[in-house]
Amino acid sequence: MLMTGDQYIESLRKLGTRVYMFGEKIDNWIDHPMIRPSINCVKMTYDLAHDPQYVDLMTAKSNLTGETVNRFGHLHQSTDDLRKKVKMQRLCGQKTASCFQRCVGMDAFNAVFSTTFEIDKKCGTKYHENFVEYLKYVQNNDLIVDGAMTDPKGDRGLAPHAQKDPDLFLHIKEKREDGIVVRGAKCHQTGSINSHEHLIMPTQAMGEDDKAYAVAFACPSDVEGLYMVYGRQSCDTRKMEPNADVDLGNKNFGGQEALVVFDDVFIPNDRIFLCEEHEFAGMLVERFAGYHRQSYGGCKVGVGDVIIGAAALAADYNGANKASHIKDKLIEMTHLNETLYCCGIACSAEGYPTEAGNYQIDLLLANVCKQNVTRFPYEIVRLAEDIAGGLMVTMPSSIDFNSDLEVGRNGETLAEVCNKFYAASDTCTTIERMRILRFLENICLGSSAVGYRTESMHGAGSPQAQRIMIARQGNINAKKELAKEIAGIK
Amino acid sequence: MLMTGDQYIESLRKLGTRVYMFGEKIDNWIDHPMIRPSINCVKMTYDLAHDPQYVDLMTAKSNLTGETVNRFGHLHQSTDDLRKKVKMQRLCGQKTASCFQRCVGMDAFNAVFSTTFEIDKKCGTKYHENFVEYLKYVQNNDLIVDGAMTDPKGDRGLAPHAQKDPDLFLHIKEKREDGIVVRGAKCHQTGSINSHEHLIMPTQAMGEDDKAYAVAFACPSDVEGLYMVYGRQSCDTRKMEPNADVDLGNKNFGGQEALVVFDDVFIPNDRIFLCEEHEFAGMLVERFAGYHRQSYGGCKVGVGDVIIGAAALAADYNGANKASHIKDKLIEMTHLNETLYCCGIACSAEGYPTEAGNYQIDLLLANVCKQNVTRFPYEIVRLAEDIAGGLMVTMPSSIDFNSDLEVGRNGETLAEVCNKFYAASDTCTTIERMRILRFLENICLGSSAVGYRTESMHGAGSPQAQRIMIARQGNINAKKELAKEIAGIK
Amino acid sequence: MLMTGDQYIESLRKLGTRVYMFGEKIDNWIDHPMIRPSINCVKMTYDLAHDPQYVDLMTAKSNLTGETVNRFGHLHQSTDDLRKKVKMQRLCGQKTASCFQRCVGMDAFNAVFSTTFEIDKKCGTKYHENFVEYLKYVQNNDLIVDGAMTDPKGDRGLAPHAQKDPDLFLHIKEKREDGIVVRGAKCHQTGSINSHEHLIMPTQAMGEDDKAYAVAFACPSDVEGLYMVYGRQSCDTRKMEPNADVDLGNKNFGGQEALVVFDDVFIPNDRIFLCEEHEFAGMLVERFAGYHRQSYGGCKVGVGDVIIGAAALAADYNGANKASHIKDKLIEMTHLNETLYCCGIACSAEGYPTEAGNYQIDLLLANVCKQNVTRFPYEIVRLAEDIAGGLMVTMPSSIDFNSDLEVGRNGETLAEVCNKFYAASDTCTTIERMRILRFLENICLGSSAVGYRTESMHGAGSPQAQRIMIARQGNINAKKELAKEIAGIK
Amino acid sequence: MLMTGDQYIESLRKLGTRVYMFGEKIDNWIDHPMIRPSINCVKMTYDLAHDPQYVDLMTAKSNLTGETVNRFGHLHQSTDDLRKKVKMQRLCGQKTASCFQRCVGMDAFNAVFSTTFEIDKKCGTKYHENFVEYLKYVQNNDLIVDGAMTDPKGDRGLAPHAQKDPDLFLHIKEKREDGIVVRGAKCHQTGSINSHEHLIMPTQAMGEDDKAYAVAFACPSDVEGLYMVYGRQSCDTRKMEPNADVDLGNKNFGGQEALVVFDDVFIPNDRIFLCEEHEFAGMLVERFAGYHRQSYGGCKVGVGDVIIGAAALAADYNGANKASHIKDKLIEMTHLNETLYCCGIACSAEGYPTEAGNYQIDLLLANVCKQNVTRFPYEIVRLAEDIAGGLMVTMPSSIDFNSDLEVGRNGETLAEVCNKFYAASDTCTTIERMRILRFLENICLGSSAVGYRTESMHGAGSPQAQRIMIARQGNINAKKELAKEIAGIK
Repeated sequence: MLMTGDQYIESLRKLGTRVYMFGEKIDNWIDHPMIRPSINCVKMTYDLAHDPQYVDLMTAKSNLTGETVNRFGHLHQSTDDLRKKVKMQRLCGQKTASCFQRCVGMDAFNAVFSTTFEIDKKCGTKYHENFVEYLKYVQNNDLIVDGAMTDPKGDRGLAPHAQKDPDLFLHIKEKREDGIVVRGAKCHQTGSINSHEHLIMPTQAMGEDDKAYAVAFACPSDVEGLYMVYGRQSCDTRKMEPNADVDLGNKNFGGQEALVVFDDVFIPNDRIFLCEEHEFAGMLVERFAGYHRQSYGGCKVGVGDVIIGAAALAADYNGANKASHIKDKLIEMTHLNETLYCCGIACSAEGYPTEAGNYQIDLLLANVCKQNVTRFPYEIVRLAEDIAGGLMVTMPSSIDFNSDLEVGRNGETLAEVCNKFYAASDTCTTIERMRILRFLENICLGSSAVGYRTESMHGAGSPQAQRIMIARQGNINAKKELAKEIAGIK
Repeated sequence: MLMTGDQYIESLRKLGTRVYMFGEKIDNWIDHPMIRPSINCVKMTYDLAHDPQYVDLMTAKSNLTGETVNRFGHLHQSTDDLRKKVKMQRLCGQKTASCFQRCVGMDAFNAVFSTTFEIDKKCGTKYHENFVEYLKYVQNNDLIVDGAMTDPKGDRGLAPHAQKDPDLFLHIKEKREDGIVVRGAKCHQTGSINSHEHLIMPTQAMGEDDKAYAVAFACPSDVEGLYMVYGRQSCDTRKMEPNADVDLGNKNFGGQEALVVFDDVFIPNDRIFLCEEHEFAGMLVERFAGYHRQSYGGCKVGVGDVIIGAAALAADYNGANKASHIKDKLIEMTHLNETLYCCGIACSAEGYPTEAGNYQIDLLLANVCKQNVTRFPYEIVRLAEDIAGGLMVTMPSSIDFNSDLEVGRNGETLAEVCNKFYAASDTCTTIERMRILRFLENICLGSSAVGYRTESMHGAGSPQAQRIMIARQGNINAKKELAKEIAGIK
Repeated sequence: MLMTGDQYIESLRKLGTRVYMFGEKIDNWIDHPMIRPSINCVKMTYDLAHDPQYVDLMTAKSNLTGETVNRFGHLHQSTDDLRKKVKMQRLCGQKTASCFQRCVGMDAFNAVFSTTFEIDKKCGTKYHENFVEYLKYVQNNDLIVDGAMTDPKGDRGLAPHAQKDPDLFLHIKEKREDGIVVRGAKCHQTGSINSHEHLIMPTQAMGEDDKAYAVAFACPSDVEGLYMVYGRQSCDTRKMEPNADVDLGNKNFGGQEALVVFDDVFIPNDRIFLCEEHEFAGMLVERFAGYHRQSYGGCKVGVGDVIIGAAALAADYNGANKASHIKDKLIEMTHLNETLYCCGIACSAEGYPTEAGNYQIDLLLANVCKQNVTRFPYEIVRLAEDIAGGLMVTMPSSIDFNSDLEVGRNGETLAEVCNKFYAASDTCTTIERMRILRFLENICLGSSAVGYRTESMHGAGSPQAQRIMIARQGNINAKKELAKEIAGIK
Repeated sequence: MLMTGDQYIESLRKLGTRVYMFGEKIDNWIDHPMIRPSINCVKMTYDLAHDPQYVDLMTAKSNLTGETVNRFGHLHQSTDDLRKKVKMQRLCGQKTASCFQRCVGMDAFNAVFSTTFEIDKKCGTKYHENFVEYLKYVQNNDLIVDGAMTDPKGDRGLAPHAQKDPDLFLHIKEKREDGIVVRGAKCHQTGSINSHEHLIMPTQAMGEDDKAYAVAFACPSDVEGLYMVYGRQSCDTRKMEPNADVDLGNKNFGGQEALVVFDDVFIPNDRIFLCEEHEFAGMLVERFAGYHRQSYGGCKVGVGDVIIGAAALAADYNGANKASHIKDKLIEMTHLNETLYCCGIACSAEGYPTEAGNYQIDLLLANVCKQNVTRFPYEIVRLAEDIAGGLMVTMPSSIDFNSDLEVGRNGETLAEVCNKFYAASDTCTTIERMRILRFLENICLGSSAVGYRTESMHGAGSPQAQRIMIARQGNINAKKELAKEIAGIK
């Protein structure tokens, strides 16, 4: 039932996923050095589920099948489940220092489950039944599913139907008896390449004119007409250097993003979960976004833990760990990181059941959570760069640290020179110091900075999206009444 | 069993509490206009317990007696209880926009309960039994108890026993067969005057030399030898102006602080909960401080709600509520306020049972909570002052707004002139505008600023106290291991 | 020529200024304990001009008369003059820890001087000549002039002419051969009561419909039809307590605000500097605001110096001055304070001559200066409250510290008890400790908080006013061109 | 006299500078794609000096020779010169969006000039004469000189002489009649490779035991025994991709860092400026650091201008430029950037002459300047990432945007697909949008982030170094006296 990490890797090999990068089709993308670290993050979510010490966090008993499933495929049955979700994410963040991609599926499952229930109730459709069957299939096969929401959007000042090119939002191109044909694309898709399946949702609330854009469905990664274009990132090709290790900072794990193109993809009826009921697009978006904003109170906190540890090590290695300002900066990093965690836990603890029976997070607090995530990781990174020192960005490559090219007047090799001048305190070798500084480089301004910083900013919605929700959920009128009462205004 | 607010007021009249202020003994302090607003806050905690819509938050079933008790007298039996505590505090903050003082007792009960259990277990003493009996008495009579910790401390660089004046920390002066005599004082006591009882705890961890200072006990407010000196606050005497109302901003509620002097007070054996077991002083302090740092994630959030509402009203009244920067500032205030709430909820949801059976909060997260409280209320106030406009501090007194003194060339009265020139949008009268601005004045830099700002800073420990705990609880070594694993350091 | 402080006080006695407060006309307002501290601040600007060590900062050679004048009455002749203005203000802030009120006149002189020159050039009017004669009179008599801009404004969503009550903006009620009659009011006037003269300017840019509101003129404080209503402030009446001293924190100096009513005041032609030329209202406002936003980079920095010193003393007195976090907070306060000073100096150093010949500040940088002033003093205050400790708001009154009422069991007086328990380190007496804490109370949340905090927020324009100017002056299009060039976009 | 940019390039070709990178000696480093962008920044400082519109900023009249020299080689003769320095740097930042490296030489010239004057006066040495001759040579030949200060430092807890390896601080290995032999290294050297000469200074204040480390001198880049090891940076090898252009974001300009090794380099007597007079090491460091901290108030502001422009363009291109929150973020970026400029200008305007006659900046304000630079660029970058949107890090490579590989069902090429889905508003082509987003990627987390972020943090000293200076220069005792005076403490 629960795949091991290795089984997951093998399952990917059986898929005919189409990936384009640098102008070429990448056939063996699974072993491609730029892609593999990202796959390894997903693999970790499989492996940890087999680790006895994490079994309570990583697995759950399915309310659909009664079987033990990976928690990433679970419908939350309680606020305890919601809190465990956050803790599972913190754990995965700690183990990968990267985005592990599987939460979008989980967040989509929970949002689609409750929304389809309410659609069916109102519209007499069968989307919920479709979805329950689909989710059983996912759970039974321990699949990873890319929950995809963001469209390219074109001119942001225009509605979907008003765009010059109708494909800039994914839409129903054709309705057939046995299903629909969809066209368009989803962008910023972090886990798409590593997923078995895709669960597509509309990107925003929609009106009558946009009803062709109000569509939700699932399909396998290698369905006909679907392909992906790989996004490039800071330092991406460093991963392709021979014997890449030390300079990567985080050799085994990393992130990626892709554009997922739907070039007239056929979706059979039993995989459709929304089809033109535009008035529910907003609800689906809000619920998915709510769950996903909760997620950031777990995953980025886990990454933050690693950064704090790395900064503390860098201080040790530099011989600066006794300085009061260093200690205080580590406290501040911890304080900010745990504040994010508080938000993740709080919106979970304040969750409540939906009509369909699974648990929803507190929407206001989840938006507050994500809003803080658009700020604090940047300050955590700033403090890490402060503690690390400039060496993080001025050290020679590890090739130099290993080179036997003679450069000194007395025949010293380049390796000897590098190791000599970059030696620091007795608590570490020069290579160890380089390793920790390269890790910090990677997370602060290398490829992992995409995941830790930019994704913290824009993942699950850009900051202004949360502010709109905070305004909406903040119940300002009730607060005005409180003030009137106190101030003696009738 | 549960007193009404009025019964509470009457119960105070029966006490012979000694209060000194402005060089005099205040005999009828209960009706004194400077003191009464503070009493009214406590009264609210009694009245709300009778309000059917709040009964779930405000009351609980005692694990000691099986009876319904005010939650402020309850031992937390679950994380649900811990969360309800925070919500009860937010509610009380919303209803008073002030400190309602009763949480120190609740926090002390829970800390003393679990600590005495562990002392007895180790030392064979009977403190826990003493305390359980005492708490039953408190619950059965619905008493308010001042949990008191902070000593004057004298020179902060010196331990208690090393102070020039031994009384600068409260201590056991004499041990008798039937009890002890204590001497010293507790300062910054917010609720002392309004309390029936005092529950005294040591102020810090202590060594063998300080064992005479390791003492915890309870006594009634009017025990022989105990008296209080009233602290003065910003705008305190404004409350004594004739017909004080509008200018107060918050006519009915307010705060106060007192020095509580123990001038050789005798404590009988059955009211003693710690007596020279200095090695437990630290545990007691840490637990009380932990609970109390949680508290700030509730009470100040409630006050914040009122401030946000008042700022929104001020914008309405000024005719500025459509400006995008005003809306954004209200969002920011809400965001900060809810972040505090997240911290209060999170440290509750992550609580766990003590050996004695009641529930303890998560210590790291409670300290993170309070640390944020030392920052965000200041920014909330800054934004409120921004939205309010300068009028908040430049308007004439309400006497002028009501004066029929002729001042204009055509016989206009002072009242007419004031009402003419301070008129704003149609949505309010000038007096209503004044009311809301005076409320903001009061909370930003008037007497309530003491409760909302300075108390947020120093109550339950100054910021550095939390940073020390965050450092201690942050488990930096585990984080270093995470970083080593990722960076490939053995 | 240059009055002494005492001569200034006497000169006020000769004026028939009408002041209303608490429903009464205050005849001897000069010796009124609530008003006098504010007068003393102005007095300081006279006294310092006679102090040899400050003569270079406090005086200048008039370009109009060739005589030595108080710099507050000077037209800036160079960027050196502009920088000296800022330094003079820092000095006055250091000597009073308050607003010394005289800069609005100086800022108005410089703005009216250059604007009238340009009006006359375009419109053929004689305002500049009028103004030059007026300013000679001011310089020759060493007068203090209240430069007044802010109208009550009523509904902020409406233009002056569209207000329900036409008087909510000051306007020309009648034009006569020999002058005009004006009606309306100016609010938030800090120095009005202490001024010999008033120099009135319009409050915002105006259109054709508002031309009756486009008016600038001067008149003496006791002109017929002019009167003032005193604004009340935090802790205002504390100044009226018998023997008020220690509890005031700053016994000698303070601030005040008033509403200045123009009840059909006649202005003769030679005191008119703008009369219906509405297209110049914006220029006048912008220039005055520019100078005045520069001012805050001096005066509030001087107050900040005193706060930093007081916080450092509080740490000494508490025995906490060796703690690294205390030292770091003092550094941060200094850093923030000096950043404000940098802004004040920079907009001065980058000044340039106007067409009329006096020097104008750099408008962008002056707005940046003031914008920072709406933020940093709040953080400085927060840090000061942190360092001070809670005692700042919980100490008994000084009456208690001096009371011989017996309160202890052994006959100890209230004074003895207070002095005993509030003793701290050996470096101070308890009264000295109280003095410094009361000073901090006063500046953080007492009457001086109005000047240091709220005035920093709203004086010279609220934060959003600066943001609009920063947007306008920031030349975003030129910056876009720089980016295109670098990015290779044609 | 003044070289053109092309002449500068040619002059480099004549040097035998030794550069190692990736385990190899790079012979034609001048045309190496990773190095050339950094050389182009220096080239810009030569080219701009020939541009008539910038001649006043870029050149000055030498006080040594009376000839026109590049301002980068000038001794400041006035506060005007100091302000022009800052403006020149802002200009160069705007033209390169990078570090242009030439200021370290200028800052070293001015620091060495005044310090050697004072050494000679006290010690009877001839360092000043040596230096004046050297500087004439530099000015006459329009050379660029790497002012180098930072040693590897090894264990930061140990003094130079106490390090296990004596070479971890650069030192005098041998004193000969005709000169000295030096050994050690300087790290984090930004401009070293592109410089004709090196001007070496000690890295910190030193005691008697460290006198062998108290050494200052100059030598050409290709002196025997000197070589450099190239540091690797984020995205460094992207510059080596074929047809690298769009993906670079900033094709023409960039930064670099190197380790400069002194492997027993001989320095003749006339190029020595400090030799064992350890008591002057601190003065030299403080002066150089002061000038260099001023520099950051110019150069990074220029880069900030480009970032603001780029963010504004990104908003235009995304069609989001009308959103009020976007406008507000651009205002905030401008505000922060101009605050830095204020600090740069202020410490210049407050400069004063040294004993040697050149002008020194205000040390306190220069440290305040740099301290702000360790903060605000991080927030500017955060806001830029917010405005840019996630596309900045998820877009495919420009190879994909140009690929004619067929990928669509109807034969659409990869280029067509990319251009289709990444189209946005009508105001730009998709490639232009990509260009501006790649520029932002580069500056936020690509190779230029090293220059804009990490260098802002650590260049000219890490944040704590400035805090120490702020504490030292803040004159806290004088501030205490101000507070005592106000509070009435004798």
